[in-house]
Amino acid sequence: MNQPLHELFRLHERLAADTWTIKDLALSRVLLMNDKRYPWLILVPRRDDLRDFHDVAEADKAALHAEIDHASAVLKELTGAFKINVAAIGNMVPQLHVHVIARFEEDAVWPKPVWGLGEAVPYSPSEVGSLIEKLKKAIHG
Amino acid sequence: MNQPLHELFRLHERLAADTWTIKDLALSRVLLMNDKRYPWLILVPRRDDLRDFHDVAEADKAALHAEIDHASAVLKELTGAFKINVAAIGNMVPQLHVHVIARFEEDAVWPKPVWGLGEAVPYSPSEVGSLIEKLKKAIHG
Repeated sequence: MNQPLHELFRLHERLAADTWTIKDLALSRVLLMNDKRYPWLILVPRRDDLRDFHDVAEADKAALHAEIDHASAVLKELTGAFKINVAAIGNMVPQLHVHVIARFEEDAVWPKPVWGLGEAVPYSPSEVGSLIEKLKKAIHG
Repeated sequence: MNQPLHELFRLHERLAADTWTIKDLALSRVLLMNDKRYPWLILVPRRDDLRDFHDVAEADKAALHAEIDHASAVLKELTGAFKINVAAIGNMVPQLHVHVIARFEEDAVWPKPVWGLGEAVPYSPSEVGSLIEKLKKAIHG
């Protein structure tokens, strides 16, 4: 009742289980995948019933693109990544989410895409605390 | 000299070898991957020196997003896809290109992402001719 729309937003339980929350931007919730093999952000537009990338409302498209770009630039700057991979796949988790992944020529599966290869390696609490702080400072808007 | 910028555009040889050309949109060249396991379009912005998704110039962002959405909607409509996968990866081919892939719950590798799994299955000339015609008619702008 009288809640702004985004307060009704519910993150899919699989995304919640696999990530740390960085912050909410104007449109998207920014998450960090709990897999230290790759610095890996996930952007989830806080709107109900989005599934495919092209389901995003006309009014939200510019914000989504800007937030993907911002997350990509921050990740590249913080990590010195060789390449940023951006993808909306969602075959397993139907809630629209956009992967923004920092890749390195010496990372675990380079040059292959990261999905479905090997097992996630969780961060230790101290590692992730420091990375989350850096990301919170650098990501804004 | 006095050529419009896009006439200087050169498609990466690997993309040229793996695809059929559908047409040029305002920003992107639309290609069809020669792999009949999945109806699979690739959009290549006709600009020099783009590598990451966030390298796209501010003035081109709305067009790129619109062209991705249009290609996605056409592919979904033409094929009855269950899900559209959108991705800018580019670990192997450095020229920025955006994958728009129609996925089905019964396709070759569902629910995994398509890259790096199995071998491409080329279309026969008659199959691809008819698909290219349909795509040429449906994709515009």
